[in-house]
Amino acid sequence: MFVADGTPPYAPAADLADAHRRDEADPLAEFRERFAIGATPVAYLDGNSLGRPPKATIARLREVLDAEWAGRLILSWEERWIDLPVQVGDQLAEAVLGSGAGQTVIADSTTVNLFKALHAACRLRPDRTEIVVDDANFPTDRYLVESIAAERGLTIRWLTPDPELGVTASDLADVLGPDTAVVLLSHVDYRSGYLAGLDGVTAAVHEAGGVVVWDLSHSAGLVPMSLDAAEVDFAVGCTYKYLNAGPGAPAFLYVAAQHLSVVEQPITGWFGAADVFAMAPRYEPAPDIRRMLSGTPSVLGIVAVQEGMTLIAEAGLDRIRAKAVDLTEYTIALADERLVPLGASVASPRAAAQRGGHVTIRCSDAEAVTARLVAAGVVPDFRNPDLIRLGLSPLTTSYAEVWTAMDIFATVLAKG
Amino acid sequence: MFVADGTPPYAPAADLADAHRRDEADPLAEFRERFAIGATPVAYLDGNSLGRPPKATIARLREVLDAEWAGRLILSWEERWIDLPVQVGDQLAEAVLGSGAGQTVIADSTTVNLFKALHAACRLRPDRTEIVVDDANFPTDRYLVESIAAERGLTIRWLTPDPELGVTASDLADVLGPDTAVVLLSHVDYRSGYLAGLDGVTAAVHEAGGVVVWDLSHSAGLVPMSLDAAEVDFAVGCTYKYLNAGPGAPAFLYVAAQHLSVVEQPITGWFGAADVFAMAPRYEPAPDIRRMLSGTPSVLGIVAVQEGMTLIAEAGLDRIRAKAVDLTEYTIALADERLVPLGASVASPRAAAQRGGHVTIRCSDAEAVTARLVAAGVVPDFRNPDLIRLGLSPLTTSYAEVWTAMDIFATVLAKG
Repeated sequence: MFVADGTPPYAPAADLADAHRRDEADPLAEFRERFAIGATPVAYLDGNSLGRPPKATIARLREVLDAEWAGRLILSWEERWIDLPVQVGDQLAEAVLGSGAGQTVIADSTTVNLFKALHAACRLRPDRTEIVVDDANFPTDRYLVESIAAERGLTIRWLTPDPELGVTASDLADVLGPDTAVVLLSHVDYRSGYLAGLDGVTAAVHEAGGVVVWDLSHSAGLVPMSLDAAEVDFAVGCTYKYLNAGPGAPAFLYVAAQHLSVVEQPITGWFGAADVFAMAPRYEPAPDIRRMLSGTPSVLGIVAVQEGMTLIAEAGLDRIRAKAVDLTEYTIALADERLVPLGASVASPRAAAQRGGHVTIRCSDAEAVTARLVAAGVVPDFRNPDLIRLGLSPLTTSYAEVWTAMDIFATVLAKG
Repeated sequence: MFVADGTPPYAPAADLADAHRRDEADPLAEFRERFAIGATPVAYLDGNSLGRPPKATIARLREVLDAEWAGRLILSWEERWIDLPVQVGDQLAEAVLGSGAGQTVIADSTTVNLFKALHAACRLRPDRTEIVVDDANFPTDRYLVESIAAERGLTIRWLTPDPELGVTASDLADVLGPDTAVVLLSHVDYRSGYLAGLDGVTAAVHEAGGVVVWDLSHSAGLVPMSLDAAEVDFAVGCTYKYLNAGPGAPAFLYVAAQHLSVVEQPITGWFGAADVFAMAPRYEPAPDIRRMLSGTPSVLGIVAVQEGMTLIAEAGLDRIRAKAVDLTEYTIALADERLVPLGASVASPRAAAQRGGHVTIRCSDAEAVTARLVAAGVVPDFRNPDLIRLGLSPLTTSYAEVWTAMDIFATVLAKG
């Protein structure tokens, strides 16, 4: 029997009735009703790629279209839209990032925000020559480091973490030093699900005199954190995963208050200017977090972030994290019971404290297996070349959904 | 009596009945019914800041939320979303840009696209040292040139055009030369409404060996053009003006086919990679226009562009342009009759061939006058310090709306 640290033991071969009992006992079960959930798929385990739509978001978008866009037209910018990037950024900071106001904006894609954050971070250490990233990081993160290193003449120090974990403190210790300008890391590894020690790693980077940029795409809305207390310099993250803001919704960008008066980013559009409507002869950045903005932000996107985040705030990150731990433990127990005997293996950390919200299964023919799962109504996420990611979203994933998915998964593997 | 080139004469002091007769004769009048238009404002003359919502867009967004996001979740990316940036880009290219397929994407803000286009353009002329922009250009355009010139060590050659016109061929002749790397210009001046000669200016820049980047924000969906035939190198533009795609909708970016195999841009995200889902170890740009993409694009935004553009395609740019000319002539005639005697003046070109879709009025206390107009149900656009922009959108603006606006404008000015 698999017993994890600090969580209840799971009996192997638990049945569907057992899963239903777990759902009945789940203090977050009611939140599932707040989302638009249809009859298919029978099990959706990819909320960490695209979260389900909250019913409130659909209603709110309708209201924005009818009352705000059609009804007030351009007047809505002054009446309610112009401050949305900072206003919703502040709400997100409080509910999700554990940080104070005035340091977060919602706008642009994660890629664009990461580009801005990395340039801004590098400019804080103009005399240092190295930028650190790991080769297991999400492609965008690595690609941007390549681009920026080439443009700024920096040397990339590549980390190669254990693929079933992620970057550890000892991996980092090997590369940090007096040349370290910037370190970019993901809080939760997009493949293994490894949860990095944000506070300790941040302290280690600072100890070496470097600046840290965290990609929170797979942890925001899932893992409690306190960016201010941890003294994080920059952070970016995605809103269409655990924040349920919809396909291609705008990302967030956090800059520690201590850097705001000096930080500079290169995409200098009118929304980042000190006075947006002055149409000034030369660019003067806003004195506050708005200087990280560039062009006109997506109103539909930001209000969707606001609605998604409101559900997170209501549920509370501590309860969300507790359910994430429980769901992943349950998934691993079922995997050990049903999938491992069929040749698959668990490619995520076994210790709950080292794990985010997904469990990754390694198996042969993973792409074909994923296709068979989808055909059977189970939607996970294939990750090249041999990984199948099972995403557990505490506000929407039920234990019955997980049990059904693992049962079908076992059937598919057994058929070969 | 004011008579414009090639357009019917307008009798001064035409009354509201005359405006209604013009609406009855308008071949595009039926398009107004395709938009969600409420009882207020009584006259909306700011469609060149934010166009009105098409009814089809509201319905389509609802469908995307319900059927595609809620209904198919992550599967929609593969089934219908992944190609949207290029697919809708191609449709826009045909209907709006007069250009062939495979050269246009919809994604990101105009600012971000302009940043990418300017960097890409500069990289095509690595041995040249000057970048040209005019000081009457939109703030974002100027601010980005400042940022990029500083980063790349380029000298900015500032043009200072006549403020009631825009950059002319002779303005340009003074600065173009063997050091010219890139020229950035707006097709329609955001203040005066001056319509630049896109073909001739492009040829002049090429004659000097430079690369041209056009900002089409105030001409896309309004003025017929043929980017391919004009041999334009790069173009960007906004979709929430004449393309009616909504607040903060994603912009477009055009790159001439001849540059696609060599062009490079610095915001290297996963959507610009050769194989998006390969999660490759190093960035390899897509071999086609997708290399100009960066992060995950906004699905809601792109489908709104598609719906807006479909109406443009249906109406046809020639008919749209003809009505724009007629509406601006009519507006100028009413301004001469009603506003000029009260101390205002027309700050837009008198020749229809030199004018886009808006007419700008100069008057004292313009900001306060704008506030009074808005209070009276007329929505124009104040532009610092003494300009009031009257935007005429051929698909939605009626002659009666213009007449009413000008009547109220005269009343406001008369009261002082």
